[in-house]
Amino acid sequence: MDFPERIEAGMQRALRYATANGCPPILAKALRHAVFPGGARIRPRLCLAVAAACGDREPLAADSAAVAIELLHCASLVHDDMPCFDNAMTRRGAPSVHAQFGEEIALLVGDGLIIAAFETIARETQQTPLLTAPMITTIAKAVGSPYGLVAGQAWESEPEINIAAYHRAKTASLFSGAVSTGAIASGGNPREWLVLADALGAAYQVADDLYDAVGQSDAGKPAGQDSRNGKPNIVASIGLEAALARLKRLVAEAVDSVPDCPGAEGFRAMIRNEATRLMPKTLATSAA
Amino acid sequence: MDFPERIEAGMQRALRYATANGCPPILAKALRHAVFPGGARIRPRLCLAVAAACGDREPLAADSAAVAIELLHCASLVHDDMPCFDNAMTRRGAPSVHAQFGEEIALLVGDGLIIAAFETIARETQQTPLLTAPMITTIAKAVGSPYGLVAGQAWESEPEINIAAYHRAKTASLFSGAVSTGAIASGGNPREWLVLADALGAAYQVADDLYDAVGQSDAGKPAGQDSRNGKPNIVASIGLEAALARLKRLVAEAVDSVPDCPGAEGFRAMIRNEATRLMPKTLATSAA
Repeated sequence: MDFPERIEAGMQRALRYATANGCPPILAKALRHAVFPGGARIRPRLCLAVAAACGDREPLAADSAAVAIELLHCASLVHDDMPCFDNAMTRRGAPSVHAQFGEEIALLVGDGLIIAAFETIARETQQTPLLTAPMITTIAKAVGSPYGLVAGQAWESEPEINIAAYHRAKTASLFSGAVSTGAIASGGNPREWLVLADALGAAYQVADDLYDAVGQSDAGKPAGQDSRNGKPNIVASIGLEAALARLKRLVAEAVDSVPDCPGAEGFRAMIRNEATRLMPKTLATSAA
Repeated sequence: MDFPERIEAGMQRALRYATANGCPPILAKALRHAVFPGGARIRPRLCLAVAAACGDREPLAADSAAVAIELLHCASLVHDDMPCFDNAMTRRGAPSVHAQFGEEIALLVGDGLIIAAFETIARETQQTPLLTAPMITTIAKAVGSPYGLVAGQAWESEPEINIAAYHRAKTASLFSGAVSTGAIASGGNPREWLVLADALGAAYQVADDLYDAVGQSDAGKPAGQDSRNGKPNIVASIGLEAALARLKRLVAEAVDSVPDCPGAEGFRAMIRNEATRLMPKTLATSAA
């Protein structure tokens, strides 16, 4: 199976457990709505790509990490869309979870997906028990407090925002988690991959801000939302051209930082392809 | 150290990690507010008591399970208190997290505590790796979907509520998780303890409903909240006297179901003491 197939199979399996017989029917429906159809699944693909570059020694463990990371990403989108944050009524061209199922269910869907993420790793690594704790602590760090997604979102409630810490926590951390667990699952050294993860995470943040500014919402969220919500946006602060230049520089940095490993060349090619995908379509030709 | 000391030391340690240097300051304050000062810490005490009854073979693992369970309990209280659910302005005699810090932070505190719970187990079982996955899957089952706390809360959004599934998921499941992980941490058989967990969980649900009806809120939540929120309450459906009788019967059942083990007698005595604590003070003498 290629990466997308492994990811979707793993997501389906995780959701079968979470919505098994006896689940409150509305919750089950909402859990699936939050996860299918997916977006670009960029973080789990990155996780599997690093695992493959390191030799894919424990594919089941790598799959579980990829699925956990995507479940956590989906959970964060559900909670971020809620009225107390972005109050976004659509996501990936469909109603957001709270718009369709109400706030109560959206809150519970997020909680349930967070739990399902850790449960997935624990369940799928019973045959590779030395990987369970390192993968879970790595992912927890990427999404929790003080340095992960939760902290990133919480910076928005501070009177003085630490912009570097904010972006690192809100975007780069989950890329780091994806890269690190991919390496761990294959016996690689996650530290060798951290420069790459930081560069890709920062690139993705710039791309997300470009989408918001240029008004193409195929990444999932409606355009212009950042300024409506008073959120920091790099295009607003340095301008479109400088933001595009930064994106190109970050992608080049990511390509250069791929460590020596059996799959290094294929991995570099993948990043270059990904760079085009990352950009709003009207800008892609000028930056490719 | 006795159980309460082990629990508080573990909770402090978990919160030191979650609020370490670099944490957004409001988030750090709110995380602590959600956890300290604690309530009765009944679930983690139960976890450690079962571990002790089974010989306390891996006290660090048992401590991590106890802490994780209490962090998850605190997370569920923070989310349950939010406006879209109970809209409770106080908890344990202080402002609830959303009342003091706002909805955004309350949402993030709940998420952060859920993540910290799994992180704690993974971090503290690195020396006992064969326990990591079984403890995490057991606890995830107790709090997630389809059978744990998340599902229990979600039943309240269904047009037709399955009362048995609702109570099992909303209250009994976390007691089961506490008992099961206590046994697992000491090499015991969690299945031998499940009747006890079910009886105690059901007893606690009745006690909680009694508190709500009788109007003594030292368990944490304001009285009369169930009827205001249209929630099922056993006192409302079978009356005060029958509810008290059921509580007594459940406690007796719990005492009878303690399996043969080195610490069985001490454990039975603990349950009898706990029964008095469980009851609203004005009713305790008549039921002891």
